[in-house]
Amino acid sequence: MAAWAKRLAGVRGVLLDISGVLYDSGEGGGTPIDGSVEAVARLKRSQLKVRFCTNESQKSRGELVRLLRRLGFDISEDEVTAPAPAACQILKERGLRPHLLIHDGVRPEFDQIDTSNPNCVVMADAGDDFSYRNMNQAFQLLMELERPVLISLGKGRYYKETSGLMLDVGAYMKALEYACGIEAEVVGKPSPEFFRSALQAMGLEAHQELCSPLLEDRVQKP
Amino acid sequence: MAAWAKRLAGVRGVLLDISGVLYDSGEGGGTPIDGSVEAVARLKRSQLKVRFCTNESQKSRGELVRLLRRLGFDISEDEVTAPAPAACQILKERGLRPHLLIHDGVRPEFDQIDTSNPNCVVMADAGDDFSYRNMNQAFQLLMELERPVLISLGKGRYYKETSGLMLDVGAYMKALEYACGIEAEVVGKPSPEFFRSALQAMGLEAHQELCSPLLEDRVQKP
Repeated sequence: MAAWAKRLAGVRGVLLDISGVLYDSGEGGGTPIDGSVEAVARLKRSQLKVRFCTNESQKSRGELVRLLRRLGFDISEDEVTAPAPAACQILKERGLRPHLLIHDGVRPEFDQIDTSNPNCVVMADAGDDFSYRNMNQAFQLLMELERPVLISLGKGRYYKETSGLMLDVGAYMKALEYACGIEAEVVGKPSPEFFRSALQAMGLEAHQELCSPLLEDRVQKP
Repeated sequence: MAAWAKRLAGVRGVLLDISGVLYDSGEGGGTPIDGSVEAVARLKRSQLKVRFCTNESQKSRGELVRLLRRLGFDISEDEVTAPAPAACQILKERGLRPHLLIHDGVRPEFDQIDTSNPNCVVMADAGDDFSYRNMNQAFQLLMELERPVLISLGKGRYYKETSGLMLDVGAYMKALEYACGIEAEVVGKPSPEFFRSALQAMGLEAHQELCSPLLEDRVQKP
């Protein structure tokens, strides 16, 4: 406990991952991980600033927050940093019109984005929509572009559901990278810009002390 | 022509690729590439030994040869070196029982293989059978093995069909390699053992002069 107190000295904010840290997704929405509902409540009662930083890319923030509130978490949409809104900002800044290889659940985040005559591919954790047909469509589009741009919402290898381990977007990103001979731009963790935008939203700046052990992905770094 | 004659001096055999060299696969079986039927016929009339060396992994050799004969090629099953029979030999030698992530067309090649209680995964160009569900099943099995063994029939990035470019097994191999943190064993081109087995079947040994320009994959090395 003393070691923890020392480690937390000077810490002003905490970034919390969601999937695999607060809850395990699965049938019926998923289940909270033991102690996590109370941990979030205690952090919110403390002097620390709290923000949620997720690579969730199957659900919109709205859907995710509704699910978490149903599981008992004190969380609101504007406390969540997620890759889809960050990707939308990049698309707008660079005049990119994406072909979307994504799950229907996250599609609302792209409602304001022009997807006509695509000049890039945005991929996310599409789950069952990672069919051969959909993968090949994205692949063919990239091969037709003079300068293929592939934006991936995260690069996770897999995640844990209550039913077991599930392939994440990173695996499919590697497939397209290899087939097209290109490198994807990753929006989301572990990109430093993504963390910076989360800190900005908290009104904090990055120092080593800000890195939280709770952010470590328990599933992916066993 | 003189340069060619010089290059061919001392050459005793020719290995011919099939897909993308003799024909382009596609709807209705595919179409022969201009001049290739006559080129095979001329080679067979010459003093050169001829063998067909393919990474085709969607069809059994029997099915492939029937298709090629229908397109006009002079070819028989025992002239074809293909990865599925090579993989079967490895499985038997090492006592491996595969989970098969393959296309139904190539399944007959594995008829004599014990697939109960799998202790490895064999993947091939599964086409539409590269569903998320099937990929995840192979992934979960590999993650459960103490020493995960993944055998891939080829590692092609893509191939050409009459309708356009198609993702090949290599892309999906990279997905599983990344997700599991392992390296696949590739059976088929460009593995030296695979070429050696083709040469052995011709009664020849490898010298630099044996490398045939016809073997270069026209699609994958543009």
